[in-house]
Amino acid sequence: MIPIDFYFDFSSPYGYLGAEKIDDIAARHGRVVVWHPILLGVVFRATGGAPLTEIPIKGDYSKHDFARSARFLGVPFKFPSRFPLATHNAARAFLWLTDRDKTLAKNFARAVYRAYFAEDTDIANTDNLLGIAGSMGVDRPSLQQAMADPAVKERLRAENDAALARGVFGSPFFFVDGEPFWGSDRLPQIDRWLETGGF
Amino acid sequence: MIPIDFYFDFSSPYGYLGAEKIDDIAARHGRVVVWHPILLGVVFRATGGAPLTEIPIKGDYSKHDFARSARFLGVPFKFPSRFPLATHNAARAFLWLTDRDKTLAKNFARAVYRAYFAEDTDIANTDNLLGIAGSMGVDRPSLQQAMADPAVKERLRAENDAALARGVFGSPFFFVDGEPFWGSDRLPQIDRWLETGGF
Repeated sequence: MIPIDFYFDFSSPYGYLGAEKIDDIAARHGRVVVWHPILLGVVFRATGGAPLTEIPIKGDYSKHDFARSARFLGVPFKFPSRFPLATHNAARAFLWLTDRDKTLAKNFARAVYRAYFAEDTDIANTDNLLGIAGSMGVDRPSLQQAMADPAVKERLRAENDAALARGVFGSPFFFVDGEPFWGSDRLPQIDRWLETGGF
Repeated sequence: MIPIDFYFDFSSPYGYLGAEKIDDIAARHGRVVVWHPILLGVVFRATGGAPLTEIPIKGDYSKHDFARSARFLGVPFKFPSRFPLATHNAARAFLWLTDRDKTLAKNFARAVYRAYFAEDTDIANTDNLLGIAGSMGVDRPSLQQAMADPAVKERLRAENDAALARGVFGSPFFFVDGEPFWGSDRLPQIDRWLETGGF
């Protein structure tokens, strides 16, 4: 079975909702998910997008909708006091971890998302990222070094380039057997697609 | 019970999907729906929005998503050869009809939407609008006169102004007991909201 590709930015509220749900949906249909952290700022520069919350009128609605959509899905949520914020260190940490242990990396990503969107932790701060990883048994000095490693930086650039080349313009973004799905509100369509093999 | 307000533009694919579903969802919970045609062009001038299909990259995805979302909801759909198009005559016709017979007006609106998004009919053409209304027993000369009536034009302007004042920035847009919902993909949330009285 072809894995599902899941593109997300650690500063994306709907990305957080996607991260909480996609592996369970995939598992029900015998699928695995490959997680790809990206930087929405880089994507928006290429596609002309903008953070939802900065758009007049729509911005206020979106903050309301983040919280309601989280309640709808049973996911804890509190709009963070710093938003959006820089996520390159979180993304680099994830990429370094996933090359070593994919399950650990996903657990780290979900913990980072929860720290940001449920507990208002500043996840741009590397000490906070190291604290989360450290509590999971990751060697902190090695991870700290990885976040500044040119090879890891290049790995993140390559993920961004690949995402843009595939037409990713937002977060979360999923590919199921080549079919693109944008947004956590497309999870029911993904579930049906996996159930029926396309509709 | 407070009626649900449903704002839509006749040129909005997701508005069409909303129009096909909202009354059934409302009826299951003993609610009625008041339909408000608006002109997205006017709304976009005020809010800085743009037709989805004209946005680079996102535009191609959105055309794909319109069709898939329609299949997901079991609604016939074929992307029209003229898109977007002027909808002020369709909106004026609806407003004149709804002041006479609300059920007839909704049937007219659904028929106009289907003509556009399932049969590729040019609904900017007043003859086509009069044909649809005429087949439902509406007096064509009276409706033709209404579409040019300054009072009906003013009624549409007032609907647009009221929509903007309430924070409407897209189509479809719903208010359920004051709670705003944007998009046909929020129909499941509306269903839950009506079921539970808010969540």
